[in-house]
Amino acid sequence: MELCLAVDIGGTKLAAGLVTSGGAVAVSRRIPTPPTDDAEELYAALGVLVGEVLTSGADDERSAAQVVVCGIGCGGPMDLRHGTVSPLNIPAWRDFPLRARMEELTGVRVALDNDAKALALAEGWTGAARARRDFVAMVVSTGVGGGVVVDGRLLDGSTGNAGHIGHVIVEPDGRLCACGARGCLEAEASGTAIAAATGRPPAEATPEVVSRTGRMVGRAVASVVSLLDIELVVIGGSVALGFGAPFFAAANTELHARARLSFTAEASIVPSGLGTSGPLVGAGALGWRAADRDLVPAP
Amino acid sequence: MELCLAVDIGGTKLAAGLVTSGGAVAVSRRIPTPPTDDAEELYAALGVLVGEVLTSGADDERSAAQVVVCGIGCGGPMDLRHGTVSPLNIPAWRDFPLRARMEELTGVRVALDNDAKALALAEGWTGAARARRDFVAMVVSTGVGGGVVVDGRLLDGSTGNAGHIGHVIVEPDGRLCACGARGCLEAEASGTAIAAATGRPPAEATPEVVSRTGRMVGRAVASVVSLLDIELVVIGGSVALGFGAPFFAAANTELHARARLSFTAEASIVPSGLGTSGPLVGAGALGWRAADRDLVPAP
Repeated sequence: MELCLAVDIGGTKLAAGLVTSGGAVAVSRRIPTPPTDDAEELYAALGVLVGEVLTSGADDERSAAQVVVCGIGCGGPMDLRHGTVSPLNIPAWRDFPLRARMEELTGVRVALDNDAKALALAEGWTGAARARRDFVAMVVSTGVGGGVVVDGRLLDGSTGNAGHIGHVIVEPDGRLCACGARGCLEAEASGTAIAAATGRPPAEATPEVVSRTGRMVGRAVASVVSLLDIELVVIGGSVALGFGAPFFAAANTELHARARLSFTAEASIVPSGLGTSGPLVGAGALGWRAADRDLVPAP
Repeated sequence: MELCLAVDIGGTKLAAGLVTSGGAVAVSRRIPTPPTDDAEELYAALGVLVGEVLTSGADDERSAAQVVVCGIGCGGPMDLRHGTVSPLNIPAWRDFPLRARMEELTGVRVALDNDAKALALAEGWTGAARARRDFVAMVVSTGVGGGVVVDGRLLDGSTGNAGHIGHVIVEPDGRLCACGARGCLEAEASGTAIAAATGRPPAEATPEVVSRTGRMVGRAVASVVSLLDIELVVIGGSVALGFGAPFFAAANTELHARARLSFTAEASIVPSGLGTSGPLVGAGALGWRAADRDLVPAP
C-alpha cells in the first residue's frame, strides 16, 4: 500500500504519521516541540520522530519503501516559493528551508503549506465538510486561522496566505491585535486574547465569555459567507471545542442575525469532524494532492 | 470578425453592444430602463435595443451573422441553474427566464451572470486589474456589489452569488441594511444609505461624508484582503467615482490601518480602469469566457 508521510509542525507539538490515499491515519506519533532557539536541534528532533514513523511497522505495508510522497502542515508565515518557514510560535526557525531539508531526508516529493489550509483539505476529504465544494475550516485555539474552499478549490491567494479569517474586523473599536490592527477576530476570540482580557485561561471562561467568543466568531463568519456564498463553516481548535455547544449556539445565532441574504439562509457553523487527527489528515491531504491524487472520501 | 453580443441590465438603464474577442467595444447603445411592471413590455424594449445593435453596422464586420455568443450582466439575485433573473431594482422581472428568451432571440449561446462579477472579469481583461490573478472589483453606486478573483479564477460560490462585499459587516451597531442585518457596508456606504443618512443625494455630500464613506469601504476591503490574500481592489460606480480622490485616499488610509499582516502591506484600492464601458466589456467577457476564449488583454 502506498502511503503519505504526514507531518504537522506546531508551536506546542510536532506530529508525524502515515496517511493512506483514502485519508486513514495508519501510524501517528507526537512529541512536544523542543523549547530551543537552535534551528538544527529542532530539526534533529523532527528527524528522529520521522524516522520512528518510517520504521514503525513490522509489516511491509508500513515500511519506508512505500512512502511515495510527504505533506507538511506548518504554522505561518512561510514562503511557499522557496519552501522556507518562519512560524510565529517557533522562534528557532526563521526562513528555515524545511521543504528542501525534508526532501533530502525522505527522498520523496514534499508538499508544504499552512496548517489551517491543510485542515480545510482534511475536513473536505474525510471530515465535516466531506464532498462539499464551498466551505471554510477554522481553528479557534491559541490563535485563529482558517482555510477557504470555493468552487471545489482551496484558495491560495497571491502569496499563499489566503484563509486568515482571524484578521477579519469584528469590533472596529476593539482590542489591539498582535498584527497591529484593532478589532480583528483574533484579538477578540483567540485563547491568547481571552486570557489577556479576562485574566484567566480559556478553560476557566465564564458562560458570558464563552457566549461573547461565539458571537465574535459568528460575526466574522457572517461577513465571510456573504462575501463568498458559502454555506458551511467547520471549526476546530482547543478553544472552540473546549467551549463546546454554548459556543456553537452563540456563533450560529450571531451568524443568522448578521448574514441575511437569501443565499446565506442555510449557512451553519459546526464542530470539526476530525478532532485531534485533523492536522495529520490535513498534512496527508497536502501530500496526496501534490501527487495528483483525487481526495475522494473512503466509501 | 467574430463578435460577442454584450447586454447589461440595470435598474436605471439597459445597454447592449458588440464586444470583440480582444475586449474592444465596437458598438454600444443604451436606453433608460422602462418604468413598467410588465415583464413582456420590458423584454420588448430590450429586444428593440438588441435588434438595433445587431443591425447597426453598415459593414459586414458588425452584422448579426458574426455574433457568435452573447453575454449578459444583470443585477441580482438570479438563479444561474435555471437562467432566471429577479433583479431587486427591476420589479417587472421575477424569475424571468432571461437566458432562454435571449437564446431564442439571438440563436447563439447566452452566458448570464451577476453584473458585478462581470465587471470583475472586465477589469482583469482590459481594465485596472489587467493580467492580475488576485483582485476584487467593486461597484459603489446605488448599492454596493463586487466580484472576487483568486488564483486567476472568478469565484462563483455555492449558488453563484460570491462577491457580495456589500454585506461585509463594518459597523456592528450601525444602520439597518435592506437585507435585514445591521452594519453591512451597503447600509453605510451606498448611494441609497448616504441619501437616507444625510438627507441629500451623494452628489451633494460634504467632505466629511465622502471621507466617512471611504473609511467604511476601506474597512470592508481590509477584512477581505486579509481573508483572501489579495493585493488589488478596483472600485467603480457613480458614488465612488463621483467622490473621486478624497474617497480613495480615505479608503486606502483605513485599509492600511486595518490590514496589518505582512502580505497585505502592498494592498491598494484604485479607481476602475474602464469607466462607463465597464459593464458592456464585462458582459462581453462573460460571453467570450463561455465560448472558451482566453481573456487575453489586447497587446
